[in-house]
Amino acid sequence: MNNNISNLLQKIKNQKTNMYNGDFLLTWERTDSEINATMYIAKILKEMHKDNISTKVFNSGLAISNFRDNSTRTRFSFASAANLLGLEVQDLDESASQIAHGETVRETANMISFLSEVIGIRDDMYLGAGHTYQKEVSDSVNEGFKEGVLPQRPSVINLQCDIDHPTQSMADLCHLETYFGGIENLKGKKIAMTWAYSPSYGKPLSVPQGIIGLMTRMGMDVSLAYPEGYGLIPEVIELSKKQAAKNGSKFEIVNSMEEAFKDADIVYPKSWAPFSVMGKRTELLYAKDFDGLKTLEKQCLTNNAKHKDWECDEKKMKLTKNGEALYMHCLPADISGISCKEGEVSSDVFEKYRIETYKEAGYKPFIIAAMMLLTRFKNVPQLLDKLLKENNVRVK
Amino acid sequence: MNNNISNLLQKIKNQKTNMYNGDFLLTWERTDSEINATMYIAKILKEMHKDNISTKVFNSGLAISNFRDNSTRTRFSFASAANLLGLEVQDLDESASQIAHGETVRETANMISFLSEVIGIRDDMYLGAGHTYQKEVSDSVNEGFKEGVLPQRPSVINLQCDIDHPTQSMADLCHLETYFGGIENLKGKKIAMTWAYSPSYGKPLSVPQGIIGLMTRMGMDVSLAYPEGYGLIPEVIELSKKQAAKNGSKFEIVNSMEEAFKDADIVYPKSWAPFSVMGKRTELLYAKDFDGLKTLEKQCLTNNAKHKDWECDEKKMKLTKNGEALYMHCLPADISGISCKEGEVSSDVFEKYRIETYKEAGYKPFIIAAMMLLTRFKNVPQLLDKLLKENNVRVK
Amino acid sequence: MNNNISNLLQKIKNQKTNMYNGDFLLTWERTDSEINATMYIAKILKEMHKDNISTKVFNSGLAISNFRDNSTRTRFSFASAANLLGLEVQDLDESASQIAHGETVRETANMISFLSEVIGIRDDMYLGAGHTYQKEVSDSVNEGFKEGVLPQRPSVINLQCDIDHPTQSMADLCHLETYFGGIENLKGKKIAMTWAYSPSYGKPLSVPQGIIGLMTRMGMDVSLAYPEGYGLIPEVIELSKKQAAKNGSKFEIVNSMEEAFKDADIVYPKSWAPFSVMGKRTELLYAKDFDGLKTLEKQCLTNNAKHKDWECDEKKMKLTKNGEALYMHCLPADISGISCKEGEVSSDVFEKYRIETYKEAGYKPFIIAAMMLLTRFKNVPQLLDKLLKENNVRVK
Repeated sequence: MNNNISNLLQKIKNQKTNMYNGDFLLTWERTDSEINATMYIAKILKEMHKDNISTKVFNSGLAISNFRDNSTRTRFSFASAANLLGLEVQDLDESASQIAHGETVRETANMISFLSEVIGIRDDMYLGAGHTYQKEVSDSVNEGFKEGVLPQRPSVINLQCDIDHPTQSMADLCHLETYFGGIENLKGKKIAMTWAYSPSYGKPLSVPQGIIGLMTRMGMDVSLAYPEGYGLIPEVIELSKKQAAKNGSKFEIVNSMEEAFKDADIVYPKSWAPFSVMGKRTELLYAKDFDGLKTLEKQCLTNNAKHKDWECDEKKMKLTKNGEALYMHCLPADISGISCKEGEVSSDVFEKYRIETYKEAGYKPFIIAAMMLLTRFKNVPQLLDKLLKENNVRVK
Repeated sequence: MNNNISNLLQKIKNQKTNMYNGDFLLTWERTDSEINATMYIAKILKEMHKDNISTKVFNSGLAISNFRDNSTRTRFSFASAANLLGLEVQDLDESASQIAHGETVRETANMISFLSEVIGIRDDMYLGAGHTYQKEVSDSVNEGFKEGVLPQRPSVINLQCDIDHPTQSMADLCHLETYFGGIENLKGKKIAMTWAYSPSYGKPLSVPQGIIGLMTRMGMDVSLAYPEGYGLIPEVIELSKKQAAKNGSKFEIVNSMEEAFKDADIVYPKSWAPFSVMGKRTELLYAKDFDGLKTLEKQCLTNNAKHKDWECDEKKMKLTKNGEALYMHCLPADISGISCKEGEVSSDVFEKYRIETYKEAGYKPFIIAAMMLLTRFKNVPQLLDKLLKENNVRVK
Repeated sequence: MNNNISNLLQKIKNQKTNMYNGDFLLTWERTDSEINATMYIAKILKEMHKDNISTKVFNSGLAISNFRDNSTRTRFSFASAANLLGLEVQDLDESASQIAHGETVRETANMISFLSEVIGIRDDMYLGAGHTYQKEVSDSVNEGFKEGVLPQRPSVINLQCDIDHPTQSMADLCHLETYFGGIENLKGKKIAMTWAYSPSYGKPLSVPQGIIGLMTRMGMDVSLAYPEGYGLIPEVIELSKKQAAKNGSKFEIVNSMEEAFKDADIVYPKSWAPFSVMGKRTELLYAKDFDGLKTLEKQCLTNNAKHKDWECDEKKMKLTKNGEALYMHCLPADISGISCKEGEVSSDVFEKYRIETYKEAGYKPFIIAAMMLLTRFKNVPQLLDKLLKENNVRVK
């Protein structure tokens, strides 16, 4: 066994978790021990994969992938995680199913779950609806399991909702832990989670919310920056404030990218639509008011265009700690002159950190797999011990 | 080994089957022994799954899923069954393939089958065409196997055609067997297979036909009820009459839901389009006469609307045996006030039996897996014995 | 072990290959030894499959299928190959992903590859672009692997590009090797690769190019025939000429199907769009000039219609060696009176060789699997030895 693995194993043995037969929906529903365990197990799985040790714990079983929005990377991360553990992905494509014909969520959740172990859901389009939908699915399979309809209770994993994006923020945490050489080194570091200009509109709030909701627990000083009017869901702001206070760290909101960048150890410049706009958008979507949606989009883009200076460029990067803050992004970024005329980040800054952003993304499959293990097995440290002892090869 | 499994194993050892290298297209093409074996094997697989015993009999191989109509539950049931046995599902999506470019069925059937073990087909749109298409695929892979093109002869499994819906009716049979405590207890029970009102039109005939074609063999008294003009395919009616006569049970056709419900042990209220309408619809579909189709739909809906009283409600349920008949449905049901204004069943009746209908559906993956085993293996009892002896875990 | 397998194993032990951690993009990038090894390994895998010996070398891992054009047979061949070796196929559907939102190829290639072993790409729509795209993906995963982003370097397999169609030409080679009883018997045989009339337009050039680029290396006399103006990519013509010269065989271009058929041992009549038209088409596609595309199609079809006599019929087949040349096609063929009014081949000729064309296609899954093995494993003969010794069953 390599040293990394044995060190990591030691760390998870100290973490008490209570996630068996549950879901992973919001990071702030999970204890510190559970957050740590998820992170370390992801890292163990990554090491085992690299060392060609099989982590196939399921001999059969489905992992359902329910994407209500386009996705490449999260879709592939979910598929990779499922495959790594021995589950087969089945897409629940709602346009190609009878759900469109008026089926209730409750029924469908059970109908697809007879032999399913995990349900991954991405639903970030409707503010106030994504998380609610995921809870509904969770309640439905819970009932099915209790009533003897389902032989097992599939776990619901949030692959992005209107409130949180835990597989992203947890992958980001893994990246930070590695980059700074340990979770304890994150204490006192400053992270600037800032809005950035993008020529598109309607990007979800879940990434910035996920970041402030998780990093304020790590003892990090969080500076949230956005142009006036681009606020996030108030409840998540409150929560972040409280967490920072509890952990003796800072949480501030500023209206200047430069201010947030000042002495930052990490910057995370990323576009999003204002909370108030997302609210209006949801109303219009429900009402199928497509003219209204067009008007809203137009207004919004006009407003966005006033903030083209919110671009992460070399000049602003110089303001950060030693001019060398770590640049992060959930990808794909809107790169000025490459993916768009003017965007979230200048091409030179992006290119400098490009490989780092790829590595950041590389944790996602393992974070999802860790969530699957913790929600499907009672004693994951013991399970990993067993796999390491069996030492079956992944590739002959 | 749990007692249920050993009892069930005992039962299948008495059943002579001749299904190896064949298909499962219509229940009435199968002997009583084969029907029983399929049912009991499904129940064994369900027990083994619950007991965490691996039933992976394929180390590799594809299960092709060819859906010519929308589907959630049957699609997932097929995928679950394939995965349970070790096969990987591949969808044959005809719009995304060269089939649209004029390929013949014969060629395609072979091209997709070089490493395939099972082909599941749902084709219920065209009266007179669905079953014919399934037979064509079957003949094609037969030729391919005989001519040395295919190293094995994939089994064709009917996931719903214009004539029968055997995976549904067999799952229903499993549910009845469990609910009434044994196949022998079905003798003399009365089942009311009745039309019910739905605001939609063009629902296939395969469910009612599948039910009357199977349950008349079980010694059950079958009462088929529909408003005048809503008849089924005459050949299936004839067949059901003969089977009932042979088994000393009753088969009647009535034009009143109330009459059918009277003293019934089981009720199965479900909408369908009249046989004559489905015939016209097929002609129009072939002719691509979309105006004609619209006119037909309009006429049909007007006609349906005359029969809104064909709803399964508490009042009608009181007419059944002790007012406590088992309500069945293939799901999704058109529930009045929930999925539509007025539908097949009142919300109180549906809610009372909701969990039962979920359990009914829960047999489908195992029924499909049983059909796969019986058509792909010479001696299934021996195979199951082997699996039980090996006793590999499904989930670590 | 059956004799076929041990004979084939003997043959691959003499072949030096250098394909590990590389791609399979163009047959002419591969040495003779590598071509032979690929062919023989495909045949070994086919024998092992027939003998029910497991070839599952991957315990987990994804095989990504990226089809930028419709496909049934290649899609299923790729899925079958992946499944045979233990990989799970994941489709990269670019319309349902964020690629449409301006992601760069470089980034996407890495994002989907964290746990992927193989990327199969079909991109034959744009002349000058398909192969270039495949190289870009290859370079991207190369960088990712070197930079520590990817734990393994997935192999890119060309499932058809604008230049070559190696899985087709290599499957064709397997068929010829079997049909004529050994690779050494192909020396001196004449193959007529000829254009044929089809009512459609814009068929890719990759099949004829793949055939002349591969068969001129086998010591075969290649006669390429097309109506004036229907030429192929000049570089591939030059390459084929050189290869024929080097191998002491003939390569000629004629403008008559009859002349090409004369004394031919094999005929391969197949429609394609002229090189110059494909070039114009690509320009128009890039410019999104849909009116221009319509005009071009019209001109092209008018031009094609002058060559309806380029049909492979009984009369022309009489010109071949003893009137008994082997007819080949990549399928689906445009069969006169069956899939179209007038097409590439008469129905009697096609029917006579139909089963042979199916067998020809049957090598494709195994050729793809051989390419996967050779690019993913250092020592394939040793790996196959191991599998044969373990002798695990594929189906219980």
